[in-house]
Amino acid sequence: MSTVENQLADIEEEIEREVPSDITITEVRYEGPELVIYTRDPKRFARDGDLVRKLASKLRKRITVRPDPASLSRPEEARETVLNVIPDEAGVTDLDFHTDTGEVVIEAEKPGMVIGRHGSTLREITQEVGWTPEVVRTPPIESSTVKNVRNFLKQERNERRDILERIGRQIHREEMSDDQWVRITTLGCCREVGRAAFILSTPETRILIDCGDKPGADDEVPYLQVPEALGSGASSLDAVVLTHAHLDHSALIPLLFKYGYDGPIYTTEPTRDLMGLLTLDYLDVAAKEGRAPPYESEMVREAIKHTIPIEYGNVTDIAPDIKLTLHNAGHILGSSIAHFHVGDGLYNVAFSGDIHYDDTRLFNGAVNEFPRVETLVLESTYGGRNDYQTDQEDSERKLLHTLNNTLERDGKVLIPAFAVGRSQEIMLVLEEAMRNGDIPEVPVHLDGMIWEATAIHTTYPEYLRDDLRERIFHDDSNPFLAEQFNHIDAGEEERQEVADGGPCIILSTSGMMEGGPILSWIEHLGTDPDSTLVFVGYQAQGTLGRRIQNGWDEIPVGNGNGRGRGNTLTLKMDVETVDGFSGHADRQGLENFVRTMNPRPEKVLCVHGDESSTQDLSSALYHEYNMRTFAPKNLETFRFI
Amino acid sequence: MSTVENQLADIEEEIEREVPSDITITEVRYEGPELVIYTRDPKRFARDGDLVRKLASKLRKRITVRPDPASLSRPEEARETVLNVIPDEAGVTDLDFHTDTGEVVIEAEKPGMVIGRHGSTLREITQEVGWTPEVVRTPPIESSTVKNVRNFLKQERNERRDILERIGRQIHREEMSDDQWVRITTLGCCREVGRAAFILSTPETRILIDCGDKPGADDEVPYLQVPEALGSGASSLDAVVLTHAHLDHSALIPLLFKYGYDGPIYTTEPTRDLMGLLTLDYLDVAAKEGRAPPYESEMVREAIKHTIPIEYGNVTDIAPDIKLTLHNAGHILGSSIAHFHVGDGLYNVAFSGDIHYDDTRLFNGAVNEFPRVETLVLESTYGGRNDYQTDQEDSERKLLHTLNNTLERDGKVLIPAFAVGRSQEIMLVLEEAMRNGDIPEVPVHLDGMIWEATAIHTTYPEYLRDDLRERIFHDDSNPFLAEQFNHIDAGEEERQEVADGGPCIILSTSGMMEGGPILSWIEHLGTDPDSTLVFVGYQAQGTLGRRIQNGWDEIPVGNGNGRGRGNTLTLKMDVETVDGFSGHADRQGLENFVRTMNPRPEKVLCVHGDESSTQDLSSALYHEYNMRTFAPKNLETFRFI
Repeated sequence: MSTVENQLADIEEEIEREVPSDITITEVRYEGPELVIYTRDPKRFARDGDLVRKLASKLRKRITVRPDPASLSRPEEARETVLNVIPDEAGVTDLDFHTDTGEVVIEAEKPGMVIGRHGSTLREITQEVGWTPEVVRTPPIESSTVKNVRNFLKQERNERRDILERIGRQIHREEMSDDQWVRITTLGCCREVGRAAFILSTPETRILIDCGDKPGADDEVPYLQVPEALGSGASSLDAVVLTHAHLDHSALIPLLFKYGYDGPIYTTEPTRDLMGLLTLDYLDVAAKEGRAPPYESEMVREAIKHTIPIEYGNVTDIAPDIKLTLHNAGHILGSSIAHFHVGDGLYNVAFSGDIHYDDTRLFNGAVNEFPRVETLVLESTYGGRNDYQTDQEDSERKLLHTLNNTLERDGKVLIPAFAVGRSQEIMLVLEEAMRNGDIPEVPVHLDGMIWEATAIHTTYPEYLRDDLRERIFHDDSNPFLAEQFNHIDAGEEERQEVADGGPCIILSTSGMMEGGPILSWIEHLGTDPDSTLVFVGYQAQGTLGRRIQNGWDEIPVGNGNGRGRGNTLTLKMDVETVDGFSGHADRQGLENFVRTMNPRPEKVLCVHGDESSTQDLSSALYHEYNMRTFAPKNLETFRFI
Repeated sequence: MSTVENQLADIEEEIEREVPSDITITEVRYEGPELVIYTRDPKRFARDGDLVRKLASKLRKRITVRPDPASLSRPEEARETVLNVIPDEAGVTDLDFHTDTGEVVIEAEKPGMVIGRHGSTLREITQEVGWTPEVVRTPPIESSTVKNVRNFLKQERNERRDILERIGRQIHREEMSDDQWVRITTLGCCREVGRAAFILSTPETRILIDCGDKPGADDEVPYLQVPEALGSGASSLDAVVLTHAHLDHSALIPLLFKYGYDGPIYTTEPTRDLMGLLTLDYLDVAAKEGRAPPYESEMVREAIKHTIPIEYGNVTDIAPDIKLTLHNAGHILGSSIAHFHVGDGLYNVAFSGDIHYDDTRLFNGAVNEFPRVETLVLESTYGGRNDYQTDQEDSERKLLHTLNNTLERDGKVLIPAFAVGRSQEIMLVLEEAMRNGDIPEVPVHLDGMIWEATAIHTTYPEYLRDDLRERIFHDDSNPFLAEQFNHIDAGEEERQEVADGGPCIILSTSGMMEGGPILSWIEHLGTDPDSTLVFVGYQAQGTLGRRIQNGWDEIPVGNGNGRGRGNTLTLKMDVETVDGFSGHADRQGLENFVRTMNPRPEKVLCVHGDESSTQDLSSALYHEYNMRTFAPKNLETFRFI
């Protein structure tokens, strides 16, 4: 017997001792980080709500109980009973019975009502039919991403089960080394923004944190080829952890599977879906621009198949000597600070990913309380000594003022915006301003991936700011469903209609005007002096957005949509910039994050910022808080223990 | 054709263009770092002394010219001619003709006379017979190590030629990467003494510098298993560079071959021989102490077979982007500072190995002038704030005083000493003192490996201090051949005779009294109150030597030589300690080395010293010279470019 078999046999014995003698355990196995107990008496387990909790604390593992397939009622019978137990208001839209695992996946508009108070309805379902219920939300706005991901995972269920079992055995393997050390190797995003990638390693384990591209520099990818990363084989990686879905953190995650990686990706559920959306778009853009994409869309599916979603705050074993906990980072939907607890109290490292420290309309501010942290790896995008941003309240006032000016003169407002994050923040501003009568109620058209990204946001309200979540759950007033929001889904024809119509607001991708429907909107509205182009996000050097901000008014048009080539248009629109809507903490926010962090870390590595920003922040934190701080270069290794 | 074939074809064309048209080139190939030109006209090459120099500077390669085997006179004929050309006083002891390479290896007592002024005699030999002469010294004291190494290499000549060709092709392969970086990874000897090992890496190349054990801690070996080292396969290493033969730098070099390494070891010729001597002894000691040796003696032979000896000051290509130059380190015979020039003027790093900055009797002080050095990796054995040693002159006075006291009362002086380095230094002190009449002329008995180590020293006088070398070469007065030195080569019987005889001095291993014949001498002399035990080297914590220094006088005896077990002896001898004979620079020496270094490095990594020594030195160099200094931990990676 392998050591894992022995271990499982020991665990089974221990479980037998702990549970009442009338409960029969038929199998114990690992599935990813979870220990799955199969029993002929699922109803008995469901009756004793405390039993699983007691076992989990005794065994120090996350536990799932499933019915032995032999003990199950037939799906046709069970279906009716389940629907009877669940209140009608829950709005069940799908029931899917999996005879291999005894799970029934319930898709409902109001998952909370399927769960019941402290899980009482779920337990009732099991008591009645034996099946283990799993609940997912029916997206309030139909999302093709969410639908595709769910269908794909359903279809790959068998293979995924095998993958999870293999990963589970890896996680729970015996530790081999007597040595103790903890190291971080920087593979990207040091003294630069983009290509985030780090290795966290111990004698036992190697974890990759993030794997992004560098916008505007296709050839500058993370140093994956060095021996500390994949140079000694992709199989030498134990796990990948993804902090959030932005491409500078996620774009090259699928590439790992092309390189032979076959292990888990730990991230939140919304990040998984957004990663799917954004990486497929990334391949699309590469194809449109005639660049060879670094991997095929098949690899995106591999990445999704290997993703193990974890929720904020859940401590998860991801290796024999490493526990991972994700915490809200306040940056975009599902964005996380990844906290690693190494060994049995040996060392703790937190990777901030990208953070926003103050609350925004969309998200609570980043978490900065941890049980322990000795080293913090901190983003420094706005770490420079002068990187202070306008307060969001002032920015909003300025935005509303601009909107009113334009709408009053019957103009249209065109806002280039990133699909994920900033668009939804602006939507919330607009919805509230219209509700309060601060601006006129005009249609708000959403073009490009914005609608789809918004649909994903509405699928995961648990990840939104608490008052917004409350409003959605309890007042049943989801601002994203407000009727003024219109999805541009009929292409050029619809755009022409909008352009010919009355005053309105248009949010369109891409955020830096480097492609996407925004270029078409510029053709429609660019020569209209009553309309206004409003920038609400950072425009990088070299992009069309930055050039227009700098006063350029000869805009190349007609590229890529078939109508004439090489023409130019003389911009007559008003151009305004409203900053302060960044998803990143500014210098003050970064300092506040560290100052109020509990516990205060001993060491801080300032990364993900240009050279002067990381050095400024590193030096300021050192002088103000007397920590050991560093502004690492790429390809360095720091040892902590 | 492979790229190397193409390259060689191009080079051959270029050579054809450069040499006079009556010289026929038959083949051009790589052998290790050298480019070997085979010609039907070796005599023409020999006539034009400048031709090879011009080609070397044109091609920027080290060049050797060899006769095409077809153009050679028969060895029987050539032998007589060669012996006629060489003056009789050269003392030729062997001639060995190699028909495969056209080389004739000439072993002579006075190699200088075989070489002639600026190589004139060598050229004359080629002009007369066509063969390419190679000269080695006949050891003035017969050395079994030197004899065995030479015989072994002669016997493995064919395989070695294949190895050299393979290595040569590796060195001259095309560069693959557009990237540029230079990194050092610490695998051992950081914040500790022992297990020296570093990786120097670029996108192209990975070099291991040293690979030693840690005395007194058998289980603490360099971190070879990490991916930056051998974790991604031993074949990922391009080269190994050995600074010197002490076991804390060399002990695990043969282990690399057990792990599958098959590349070159660059070091000086005496270091190669001493490494052979010391690693074989290391295996011997392990066997005697009942420990499993980490490798078999076969691996020592592999290491010797893969060694490419290089001389101080010779710039050698060891990878497409790295040139190595070894410089005298003043520490032991053949000890080197390894200077790496990376890229075409990109970066320069020097690894000090172990250094002695001031001249000693044996060696010139360490070289600290380089064309360029940006980073220095500096030993810090005596880097602590109080690590100042007694001046050697004072130490010598104290030693002679102690000797005189003991010898005057007809006592014997027993000196435990390391075989390599300190023994020869003391021999020089004794020889001079006797020659000057400062101490009586008494026999000096050399026991253990000291005689053999001394024989190796006499084989390589080029590596000794210049005035000592001059004395040996020109005055023909080799102090190591002084008649008072006696080799204890008849074991216990001879020791008994010496113990029963008159006043004398005995130098014996091991230096810390942890084993070896010194234990037998203690049995013979330990109870004689007229005799004196004199410590001249560092006694580590936990060794018998340290315990005796601390006043212990109950000495366990009779272990290991068959005469009784478990007895103790009450020490009655005088015990004296004379320090100041260290092979290491003290704190002052280290500071002087850096202060007068030309050019002054930008960064210094202080290694090879305990935690406080490395930190003290790092901090002092930072404050005094405003350099960026570090006291790395093991397993860290520093990036310089």
